[in-house]
Amino acid sequence: MGDALGNANSPLPPSHGTLFGVGVGPGAPDLITLRAARLIEGADVVAYPTLAGAASFARGIAADLIASDAEEIVMDVPMTVERAPAQAAYDEGAARIADALDRGSDVVCLCEGDPFFYGSFMYLFARLSERYRVEVVPGVTSVTACAARAGMPLAARNERLTILPGPLPEAELRARIDGAESVAIMKVGRHLPKIRRVIAELGLTETAVYVERASLPEEVVLPLADAPERAPYFSMILLAKGADPWL
Amino acid sequence: MGDALGNANSPLPPSHGTLFGVGVGPGAPDLITLRAARLIEGADVVAYPTLAGAASFARGIAADLIASDAEEIVMDVPMTVERAPAQAAYDEGAARIADALDRGSDVVCLCEGDPFFYGSFMYLFARLSERYRVEVVPGVTSVTACAARAGMPLAARNERLTILPGPLPEAELRARIDGAESVAIMKVGRHLPKIRRVIAELGLTETAVYVERASLPEEVVLPLADAPERAPYFSMILLAKGADPWL
Repeated sequence: MGDALGNANSPLPPSHGTLFGVGVGPGAPDLITLRAARLIEGADVVAYPTLAGAASFARGIAADLIASDAEEIVMDVPMTVERAPAQAAYDEGAARIADALDRGSDVVCLCEGDPFFYGSFMYLFARLSERYRVEVVPGVTSVTACAARAGMPLAARNERLTILPGPLPEAELRARIDGAESVAIMKVGRHLPKIRRVIAELGLTETAVYVERASLPEEVVLPLADAPERAPYFSMILLAKGADPWL
Repeated sequence: MGDALGNANSPLPPSHGTLFGVGVGPGAPDLITLRAARLIEGADVVAYPTLAGAASFARGIAADLIASDAEEIVMDVPMTVERAPAQAAYDEGAARIADALDRGSDVVCLCEGDPFFYGSFMYLFARLSERYRVEVVPGVTSVTACAARAGMPLAARNERLTILPGPLPEAELRARIDGAESVAIMKVGRHLPKIRRVIAELGLTETAVYVERASLPEEVVLPLADAPERAPYFSMILLAKGADPWL
């Protein structure tokens, strides 16, 4: 526990900058919060990860808010199965962010969705929150953005909601969905055929909705039965097994 | 499925207004999204529920954005065990909103957190989405707001996240937490003693954090062991059993 609990009595010198982990929401630039927009607009230093040299989704969402003369710290994370190269990228990014904080600059780290919800910001948080002031600004997650676009209430009253990553093994996915009420399956991507199979075996295809790039102009919302063969990484399947929106 | 799927080819006359279900986030007014702020500022008609005559939390969050001459549709929901009186309140509220939509006004319904995440907006959605254009604007939920304030990453990589309502029966809570990784327990309120007991029996008290009114000036963030005896309705317990923020 770093932020509110750990840093409350922190003896950090005031000359150090603050690291802001800022959620920029699911994709539409106007789903950024007022607080995040103010921080991004005022930032002298922004930081964000990129994946194997591709454009940063988070930076794209916030692009219109970033000052033209802001310094940008890019952490390029290689796409490998081993963890060591990605660890090295976050180690190096954390060191560059620490340099900026040491010279008194605040650093605004841009995060798709919410920084603590399947976001890479937590790797920076683990590396820096003991030594620096860190503030996390929560953002709109893809889960509620997808539900909004699909017109599917997620959970009411005493219903449970389970968030599952698509890469989980097939047997585990089946067991977790079987015992659940509403379910959001994240990071569908190349796992779509496996997920479809599990949902069909459980007899739930009729209740499942596929959502791709929620809130963006190229958004796709379809019953799972009509979903494309190939899904991008930023896609989700929603199951509302238990959700009853009537009172 | 009403919104994106159901209404795409809807033959509604353009003279009807649109109902916007707008998430206003967890409590801090600057955690409202840019889109929600624009809609609230421009609204001729705003709607929101109140509970047994108490002040509306959602209206309080958005208060500075509401035009002084906006019409306000207040749905006062009585606090009873039976569902019928609450149903009648939503029936009447839906009828008043329908009247405004019929005369061509848009209606902005204010929702704490996110409209489809344990929000009462879904009762209006169920009553109106077949007959009117409805757009849901997702908001920051209390779950990620509490995690941000507690400095507790919720889930990374292939970890699962389970959202449980505090009113669930003790045995069910125990079984659901036992099989879970990260857990957020919502609506703690008067269920705090029961939830504490379950968490202690599972040996998880050390990993549990109590958060009350996240993002508001009167916020409380404490290890569960130090939590007060009495919790308000807007309180949460976070368990990060599986969350490992290192890569």
